[in-house]
Amino acid sequence: MGADTACLPSLSLSNFLNCQEEEKKKKMKVIDKIREAAADGEAGRVVFSFEFFPPKTEDAVDSLFERMDRMVSHNPTFCDITWGAGGSTADLTLEIANKMQNMICVETMMHLTCTNMPVEKIEHALDTIKSNGIRNVLALRGDPPHGQDKFVQIQGGFACALDLVKHIREKYGDYFGITVAGYPEAHPEVIQDGVATEEAYLNDLAYLKRKVDAGADLIITQLFYDTDNFIKFVNDCRQIGITCPIVPGIMPINNYKGFLRMTSFCKTKVPPEITAALEPVKDNEEAVKAYGIHLGTEMCKKILAHGIKTLHLYTLNMEKSALAILMNLGLIDEAKISRSLPWRRPTNVFRVKEDVRPIFWANRPKSYISRTTGWDQYPSGRWANSHNPSYGALSDYQFMRPRSRDKKLHEEWAVSLKSVEDIHERFMKFCLGKLRSSPWSELDGLQPETKIINEQLGNVNLKGFLTINSQPAVNGEKSDTPYVGWGGPGGYVYQKAYLEFFCSQGKLNSLVQKCKAFPSLTYMAVNKEGRWISNISSSHVNAVTWGVFPAKEVIQPTVVDPASFMVWKDEAFEIWTRGWACLYPEGDLARKILEEVRNTYFLVSLVDNDYLHGDLFVVFEDI
Amino acid sequence: MGADTACLPSLSLSNFLNCQEEEKKKKMKVIDKIREAAADGEAGRVVFSFEFFPPKTEDAVDSLFERMDRMVSHNPTFCDITWGAGGSTADLTLEIANKMQNMICVETMMHLTCTNMPVEKIEHALDTIKSNGIRNVLALRGDPPHGQDKFVQIQGGFACALDLVKHIREKYGDYFGITVAGYPEAHPEVIQDGVATEEAYLNDLAYLKRKVDAGADLIITQLFYDTDNFIKFVNDCRQIGITCPIVPGIMPINNYKGFLRMTSFCKTKVPPEITAALEPVKDNEEAVKAYGIHLGTEMCKKILAHGIKTLHLYTLNMEKSALAILMNLGLIDEAKISRSLPWRRPTNVFRVKEDVRPIFWANRPKSYISRTTGWDQYPSGRWANSHNPSYGALSDYQFMRPRSRDKKLHEEWAVSLKSVEDIHERFMKFCLGKLRSSPWSELDGLQPETKIINEQLGNVNLKGFLTINSQPAVNGEKSDTPYVGWGGPGGYVYQKAYLEFFCSQGKLNSLVQKCKAFPSLTYMAVNKEGRWISNISSSHVNAVTWGVFPAKEVIQPTVVDPASFMVWKDEAFEIWTRGWACLYPEGDLARKILEEVRNTYFLVSLVDNDYLHGDLFVVFEDI
Repeated sequence: MGADTACLPSLSLSNFLNCQEEEKKKKMKVIDKIREAAADGEAGRVVFSFEFFPPKTEDAVDSLFERMDRMVSHNPTFCDITWGAGGSTADLTLEIANKMQNMICVETMMHLTCTNMPVEKIEHALDTIKSNGIRNVLALRGDPPHGQDKFVQIQGGFACALDLVKHIREKYGDYFGITVAGYPEAHPEVIQDGVATEEAYLNDLAYLKRKVDAGADLIITQLFYDTDNFIKFVNDCRQIGITCPIVPGIMPINNYKGFLRMTSFCKTKVPPEITAALEPVKDNEEAVKAYGIHLGTEMCKKILAHGIKTLHLYTLNMEKSALAILMNLGLIDEAKISRSLPWRRPTNVFRVKEDVRPIFWANRPKSYISRTTGWDQYPSGRWANSHNPSYGALSDYQFMRPRSRDKKLHEEWAVSLKSVEDIHERFMKFCLGKLRSSPWSELDGLQPETKIINEQLGNVNLKGFLTINSQPAVNGEKSDTPYVGWGGPGGYVYQKAYLEFFCSQGKLNSLVQKCKAFPSLTYMAVNKEGRWISNISSSHVNAVTWGVFPAKEVIQPTVVDPASFMVWKDEAFEIWTRGWACLYPEGDLARKILEEVRNTYFLVSLVDNDYLHGDLFVVFEDI
Repeated sequence: MGADTACLPSLSLSNFLNCQEEEKKKKMKVIDKIREAAADGEAGRVVFSFEFFPPKTEDAVDSLFERMDRMVSHNPTFCDITWGAGGSTADLTLEIANKMQNMICVETMMHLTCTNMPVEKIEHALDTIKSNGIRNVLALRGDPPHGQDKFVQIQGGFACALDLVKHIREKYGDYFGITVAGYPEAHPEVIQDGVATEEAYLNDLAYLKRKVDAGADLIITQLFYDTDNFIKFVNDCRQIGITCPIVPGIMPINNYKGFLRMTSFCKTKVPPEITAALEPVKDNEEAVKAYGIHLGTEMCKKILAHGIKTLHLYTLNMEKSALAILMNLGLIDEAKISRSLPWRRPTNVFRVKEDVRPIFWANRPKSYISRTTGWDQYPSGRWANSHNPSYGALSDYQFMRPRSRDKKLHEEWAVSLKSVEDIHERFMKFCLGKLRSSPWSELDGLQPETKIINEQLGNVNLKGFLTINSQPAVNGEKSDTPYVGWGGPGGYVYQKAYLEFFCSQGKLNSLVQKCKAFPSLTYMAVNKEGRWISNISSSHVNAVTWGVFPAKEVIQPTVVDPASFMVWKDEAFEIWTRGWACLYPEGDLARKILEEVRNTYFLVSLVDNDYLHGDLFVVFEDI
């Protein structure tokens, strides 16, 4: 919040209110997000983005999503996914784009090329992403598919990116943000012997202007290594009246052969000092990577020094170099990941206003999204204001997991079980950070804030209270405090201590007795059959995480509510079998023990409402 | 919140959700409120109510509302207003009932008699209160009007209260809570020589049962002074199967002659010890009142000791005796008035869910209600979730005031004004508590919490920042703390410091400059013409009062929002002339000075968002 003065003489009330309405719309187009960042503070804020391509195997797709998940926690402005040459990956690209926008929750830009694509296929692609809540497209002519030398305009298809831009604007109005490609060294097709003629370059520029005039609102450049030339290109664009942002496309050098292949395919000019620097280390993969990071950092520094505030990273589906460059530039910091909400804010156009969720799925956000997809209205402001939306039924989908996580679960959880104590020990180990996986979590390890209380969690688990979800109490910490902070600087955040666990009927009885001496504790317990024990009524919705910010209403993103708990419990109990017992061969003793636990234990949700003076763990003493 | 265990075996999800829906409905019928109180905790909670009658003069009506306003702050379960004999006060009763429910915000029960009333008139009365959001009726046959000896059944009218009860249930289903009168000493008409025969008494009881069987859900008794007889009456009712609550009607003795008149008119039995106690003091008004309070207290104690948890006070439109009795019983405490929200919660059926309001009308709640009457939907949960409802235009109504307040304003504000400094002095005196009235307030004196900061307010006013609204910062005080607490025990309440004032353009400029060094301050300023100066955007809604309670979402009842501010400013500027200048004769110098101020000053709303460490008054130092 700046202390600056906005002075609008004689603003009329209706204008005033219109302007209010306008501001309420969430920015979803990449161009709007870039403009917003540019207007942030006096100097604007630097933004960055990541490009990925559709991998060839299912395993690789799994891994890509895990990688994206991590990279997206650093808040890129958007990520884009390429469209295989000639539409070769159309279905996969659509599927990945959908998952990026809706499960990874990153603003997604899908590439779309017109090579070999009849209009119906293009419209199918656009209709699909529109219905999936995606609002950004990168319109390209596209490279000829493998085996074809040249671009082929097919019957009823488009001749060039310009046609595609026109068509999108004509058919979809201003629904989509449209990005087009810019070629700082002119389009490869007009490059002869490593260089384009001045005439060819100018023609290419003029064509770029036509694409912008036809409705493109953003330019991302082809990769380059000659930064001065990129700066010149931007100036040339401005000269001929192209005013939209021009985002430099940076491809970190990861691998010498790959670099040669890519630059030769794209006819990219490689400055001699780069060749000279690479030559002596070209057989040392690590040295090439290190140089790539160094070079990328230097290129970006130069670009930023010219007042350009956007960086687009061609990741080639790799994580380290891109992140290392951003870290060198001070744009990201592992310890200071800033979260707009305690959970990752959705980007889908239909749920952008969602800002309240039940706590139960905190470690299974994708399951939550899948079970709530298609709600007419997402809870916003307060959970109790939502109209009791009904959750989707449990399906196989909620129990699917990427192969790598499945492997880890086999290693860490499919151990010999002789008794329930062995089960207690597994849970305790997970809480102490000795295991990285849990059948009840989609995440890798514990949430960072849980580490604040992990010793206490370990003890509670050893006593037979098998925790699957928890948060420590937080009383008015600054909103930019690492781990517990969210919502940006300037505010204060709060949490009520929370614990969710399975325990036997006996343990539950002891706990219920002890709770009588702790009036600030509220609990709900339910077993697999739905037997319900609680000291709150079924209409109580408890906000357990909230934040107070300047000039805003209180935001309360996480609640504990009985109705969702009753839905969640089916999933939570099912995980005993479909998440854990299934790791053992049929007939294994472990299966029997796990099923017994599932059939007899209660799932308990426990809140300490006194976030100022309470200590949730005291109630477990002497049990 | 009890730590008790509710154990519902195998509760199905749909039952569970239905039960949730049921609980969400706000209790509005008196019977439901009484039942709710009876179920509160192990022993139940004692509730009380006040009865009033329509006064004869306009002045007396004004005074009655002021008195009611004070009495209602003690949270009676309901108040009722009588229907003049034979419908003689029908219009006035309807008007008062409407204002009680909607402006005084107390659950209102309207008496309705069938004496001399054709069905159309009865239905008109019921339709009127229904459309005014009232849900409680006391159905009576009624006394014959003055000059008539006996009840007269008119053509097409009803013969008795039983007919009226039947008709209301038939025509309005269960919309209304219906109360009927019970006569512990039998109906006066069957009392001969001070006593009813056993047969007459039993007939009367049987008739009461028929009224209950026909749909009445509550009984209030005729006044009595023989408490033992009342207890017997309750037991007799239970004997014949009347199960609904029976509320004792207590009439404190205020005045000896009035007491004789009333008891003789109602043929009320007066135990000899009361006559004996009154006889020696009958000419000493104060002594009679004191005895009345003593007697009322003792009667109530006896009743409560019998496990009856309801008390109905026939106030005869007087305040002191009724409150003194309740105070003696420990049912009310001036220092511990418990507020369910920081402002008085509405009782009208259409706005019972309202729980957010802009701060601007904090001292003019009736103006706020009048300008928002008829909204389709009232803000609940979060202001920003409401659909930009439009405020009613300013009308004469917002500038009307009761004669007593007008008189006080003349005394305190219509003083000689020679310069703006004289104006500053008035404001300062009000803030220091030296004046009881302000043209910008409907209330008597300052709000109690304002006294925490009144020295600082005085200083700020002397500097020419003429405050009309303010609140101190509150950081997590217990929700039952006197003055700043609300919402009942067990929670924590918060406030951002707020100040609203008029000041000259010059002062505003200095303030805006100084604010740059205080990033936690947000302000909006606007002059009469709508010139707007602010450091927030027009869509920011700032919650400045909120509370966190066990097992609930955060409640945020007071906000600062630019759109409402723009509406409020017209009213605030208009008060300079229609609230203050109008007190002076035409042509008076004071009028000129006040108009000049109105035309040149800005109205400023200032929030300190740092409720933990901020000090709103520091920014005014050295101005």
